[in-house]
Amino acid sequence: MALDRTDPEAEVAAAAKACSNWGRWGQDDVLGTLNFLTEAKRLEGAALIRRGESFSLSLPFDMNGPQKGWRRRTNPVHTMLDTGTDAALGNQGFPHGIGGADDVIAMPLQCSTQWDGLGHIFDHGLAWNGRRAEEVVTSEGDLVTGIEHMAAPIAGRGVLLDVGRAIGEDGELPDGFAITAEHLDATAEAQGVAVGRGDLVLVRTGQLARARRGDGWGDYAGGPAPGLSFTSAGWLHRSEIAGIATDTWGFEVRPNEFEHAFQPLHQVAIPHIGLLIGEMWDLDALAADCAADGRYEFWLTAAPLPVTGAVGSPVNPIAVK
Amino acid sequence: MALDRTDPEAEVAAAAKACSNWGRWGQDDVLGTLNFLTEAKRLEGAALIRRGESFSLSLPFDMNGPQKGWRRRTNPVHTMLDTGTDAALGNQGFPHGIGGADDVIAMPLQCSTQWDGLGHIFDHGLAWNGRRAEEVVTSEGDLVTGIEHMAAPIAGRGVLLDVGRAIGEDGELPDGFAITAEHLDATAEAQGVAVGRGDLVLVRTGQLARARRGDGWGDYAGGPAPGLSFTSAGWLHRSEIAGIATDTWGFEVRPNEFEHAFQPLHQVAIPHIGLLIGEMWDLDALAADCAADGRYEFWLTAAPLPVTGAVGSPVNPIAVK
Amino acid sequence: MALDRTDPEAEVAAAAKACSNWGRWGQDDVLGTLNFLTEAKRLEGAALIRRGESFSLSLPFDMNGPQKGWRRRTNPVHTMLDTGTDAALGNQGFPHGIGGADDVIAMPLQCSTQWDGLGHIFDHGLAWNGRRAEEVVTSEGDLVTGIEHMAAPIAGRGVLLDVGRAIGEDGELPDGFAITAEHLDATAEAQGVAVGRGDLVLVRTGQLARARRGDGWGDYAGGPAPGLSFTSAGWLHRSEIAGIATDTWGFEVRPNEFEHAFQPLHQVAIPHIGLLIGEMWDLDALAADCAADGRYEFWLTAAPLPVTGAVGSPVNPIAVK
Amino acid sequence: MALDRTDPEAEVAAAAKACSNWGRWGQDDVLGTLNFLTEAKRLEGAALIRRGESFSLSLPFDMNGPQKGWRRRTNPVHTMLDTGTDAALGNQGFPHGIGGADDVIAMPLQCSTQWDGLGHIFDHGLAWNGRRAEEVVTSEGDLVTGIEHMAAPIAGRGVLLDVGRAIGEDGELPDGFAITAEHLDATAEAQGVAVGRGDLVLVRTGQLARARRGDGWGDYAGGPAPGLSFTSAGWLHRSEIAGIATDTWGFEVRPNEFEHAFQPLHQVAIPHIGLLIGEMWDLDALAADCAADGRYEFWLTAAPLPVTGAVGSPVNPIAVK
Repeated sequence: MALDRTDPEAEVAAAAKACSNWGRWGQDDVLGTLNFLTEAKRLEGAALIRRGESFSLSLPFDMNGPQKGWRRRTNPVHTMLDTGTDAALGNQGFPHGIGGADDVIAMPLQCSTQWDGLGHIFDHGLAWNGRRAEEVVTSEGDLVTGIEHMAAPIAGRGVLLDVGRAIGEDGELPDGFAITAEHLDATAEAQGVAVGRGDLVLVRTGQLARARRGDGWGDYAGGPAPGLSFTSAGWLHRSEIAGIATDTWGFEVRPNEFEHAFQPLHQVAIPHIGLLIGEMWDLDALAADCAADGRYEFWLTAAPLPVTGAVGSPVNPIAVK
Repeated sequence: MALDRTDPEAEVAAAAKACSNWGRWGQDDVLGTLNFLTEAKRLEGAALIRRGESFSLSLPFDMNGPQKGWRRRTNPVHTMLDTGTDAALGNQGFPHGIGGADDVIAMPLQCSTQWDGLGHIFDHGLAWNGRRAEEVVTSEGDLVTGIEHMAAPIAGRGVLLDVGRAIGEDGELPDGFAITAEHLDATAEAQGVAVGRGDLVLVRTGQLARARRGDGWGDYAGGPAPGLSFTSAGWLHRSEIAGIATDTWGFEVRPNEFEHAFQPLHQVAIPHIGLLIGEMWDLDALAADCAADGRYEFWLTAAPLPVTGAVGSPVNPIAVK
Repeated sequence: MALDRTDPEAEVAAAAKACSNWGRWGQDDVLGTLNFLTEAKRLEGAALIRRGESFSLSLPFDMNGPQKGWRRRTNPVHTMLDTGTDAALGNQGFPHGIGGADDVIAMPLQCSTQWDGLGHIFDHGLAWNGRRAEEVVTSEGDLVTGIEHMAAPIAGRGVLLDVGRAIGEDGELPDGFAITAEHLDATAEAQGVAVGRGDLVLVRTGQLARARRGDGWGDYAGGPAPGLSFTSAGWLHRSEIAGIATDTWGFEVRPNEFEHAFQPLHQVAIPHIGLLIGEMWDLDALAADCAADGRYEFWLTAAPLPVTGAVGSPVNPIAVK
Repeated sequence: MALDRTDPEAEVAAAAKACSNWGRWGQDDVLGTLNFLTEAKRLEGAALIRRGESFSLSLPFDMNGPQKGWRRRTNPVHTMLDTGTDAALGNQGFPHGIGGADDVIAMPLQCSTQWDGLGHIFDHGLAWNGRRAEEVVTSEGDLVTGIEHMAAPIAGRGVLLDVGRAIGEDGELPDGFAITAEHLDATAEAQGVAVGRGDLVLVRTGQLARARRGDGWGDYAGGPAPGLSFTSAGWLHRSEIAGIATDTWGFEVRPNEFEHAFQPLHQVAIPHIGLLIGEMWDLDALAADCAADGRYEFWLTAAPLPVTGAVGSPVNPIAVK
């Protein structure tokens, strides 16, 4: 059934109704689809560690990142409190020849490789599980579903769906390419991997590789990009995955698939499905390895920094094969 | 042989000479003892995932943390760029009923649960592997051994040495208790676990539990504490462990074991041994589980946030048993 | 008429009704009592420059300030982007021998010597001039009465009422001392100065001098303090002053004069009178000079940093006699 | 005598020798040319207040500023700790109907309208008055000449030299236009104003007006610009002015007047002359007023925020005519 491109509000409402997980894990739930990530799933994931090689899926956190200031999102500003130069010059006043360096950072929690928390997106003033947005996220942060609740569980079976490699040209999907359920299934089949309940799914579009090849980030932050189609909401729901991440700024295809819209799939996925979404993950080295050995599944740990009340978190995801 | 409590400089020099790993992994090394954490070690660690239960070993990152401003180290300041209240009141200007919340943080990289990077400590102006401190860590950060180099490898076999439980009273060591090699070995033996090359060792003193029980952090940050004895440098070196972390602010015993000293064990461990050190880890829940099932080893992932040039990093370590 | 110490809400309502300036300067007003500060008043102030000596009334902005973390208010964290040590060591890469130092700051806008903006305080959800608080100050800042509107006008006649010197013992009022209209008038008379429409009034209690003499700030931020009595609201209104500042954290007496209350005079003064309030001003050097020459009036410039949408601003007020 | 465009180092050395003020105010001096700003000069300035109108010469401090990330200089990030929306919704927990808003900022001290401190620029490792840069500005800030020393004195006679209006076309100088001593003198003469010892001189090029008219800042921060010629060093020295500020990012003409150079006039003006330099001042409204009434002199207060150890400061300069 085709989307009505002129009426995102109605399409969001329909998808939200079809895909809602409200109440599925009780009224007090703060984990959403992370509930699918069970101990059994972790055992399954652990069995995928065969060679012992680890991969970081994080971009570097520095001023060379993709942010351009939209909605006050800057790149991380890292400054030193103490340096080796000062230590060498004897400026520090410590005894017996010890010297030190120390540092601070100021950054948006979603400036680079990240998880969206459940308090990140609302639908008509409602947050995950049907709570009122104004009772969940105030100036003091997310009082209910803060990212700290997700401190422990995000370790399990990871699956890479390298849609760029399976369907794109030269390993990359063009900007504006909408990844549908069919593309996801076709990729899984082509790469010989099954996606199931509780998995952490990584979708590679190749856009990051393209950005890196060029001379700068350009419009990576917020501009045109390949990404999940709004129509994939059903797949995201029925697959019962625990979380999903992409190598793009915004997870879903951009421009969005409606005439006047802003991230409509988020509006279904986070408040209604309760889905854990990751963005700006660097999947290229892992994807190359998967292509080389034909194994698209692995152990994945992607622990957020437990900032109390945060609606998102930087993360350094570690895949081990 | 007893320490000369009046001459930390000489003791540091002697220990540094005895324990140096300079050149062991080549002149260009940026990993130090993480070189011991091999793929084989990761396979060994993976085999320890038996039940699939995961534990976060991180403190919450918020204004209720232990920092008191020493050397400009504050607790994390987390503020909102957008909130649910604004979304609910229609202040955001987004279409089709979508609303959002977003946030920023400003914090020292070593304000809470953390890793020290190799550029964190110098001995007489020399950094890890004998490099000149002023050529390693400038105002632009650690140009050589920045924490980003450790983005991928820190996943392997974790071992808990619950010295507080094994040797302390009611599970806790008193402030000022210096943990020696003998204490570490006795604990390992009592708890039926072996420590070997490439392991990530967690030493629990019980001080954090004590701080949590009381009414506030008190002098947790920088005050008296149990911790590793300066004399344990040899053990840290010959055990060939990949990293070590404690539930205290400063890793080593405080007051330090010399009349006028500041963190002398750091001065040996980081620049000379190249040892990865973690501090302010919350080991209590994991320790309770280990005591319950008698298994003090597990899979551990503790990926730093790869802030380019950082000399330390917040971390949310995840143990899986 | 005595305050009903059990019913701050009723007392606030009565004072608000008696002292309201809503609509006095039109519906679009964003300046409040600053409207009283006319060009004629500036000429009057300029005539007070007799010797040409200037005084800064600002505390130093640094980590040694009074903040203790209440409501995420920290002291300013100042860090360097580039240093002289790096310049000296040739680490900067600039040509022809030029070197540089540069720095950043992270701070609450009300961490030290400051102005409260008109969007700082609300009464039952209403801001200055009767506007709805939620339409004035959102996560994006004060959209209506941001401190940037006060960028230019705050220069005029300053008057010091050194109540500590006039009424206190050894120049200081004790904590908990409530300064009434009678105290203000008596001080003005004793010091031979008149307060009139459009003046910028500085009220010295001596508490800052006491804090400085002791060994640290103690509870200066939020603890017991001398300050304006709730009953002074009428004086603040009828005097038609343009602004007022004190040498205390919170302007009004603390503990507040009701059984369960929080800064009730603010609740009248800012949203209803539209009064510009300054806090944590260092009046001691100026006061000593005024005592010496017997002249308690001067030219005063106290320009806020025009941070767009800010509800307060750090300020370095300059008095010239 | 023409500049040797191929040898900035030699030209800097010659100018530094010719213009040095080292030792002029003693070995301990921390004020440089601010020493010229005497009480007599302030009386002279005060006499210029004729109408009582005040002008802010500051840009707004917000994310729409000119910074683009060069050397980690961002625009100011202003976030809210508490908001009116939360107050309106009763989220704050205060008694008797009081609500509040509060905010924080993170910014480079030289991100917008600013003063350069004396510790901002070095020449071959030497700071103002011949001090060694590494003993002046460490990671802890400027230990000797921090901007806090300038907290009080910057109030006096201001003079506007509107070179854009006097010499430019349509009130603006083109990018790359080097303002010489002759241009400065001709402008002063054309505008009927004299520049003398102790004055605070404001040089308007018109570049800011041009930036504001266009669609964004473009390369305002660091790109081509009109500005002071390197050859004006002698004028800056012999005029014995107390300070000088421009409406451009970098004070001196850009591209600089040498083949390979970076801000060579700074290298003479700050460490050798000890000159107070301001940048990114918004002179347009004041200039229009001066053109209208033909009076190019006024009272000027431009107090830096006294951040301890800062090498620069944001400033909201206030001119009163």
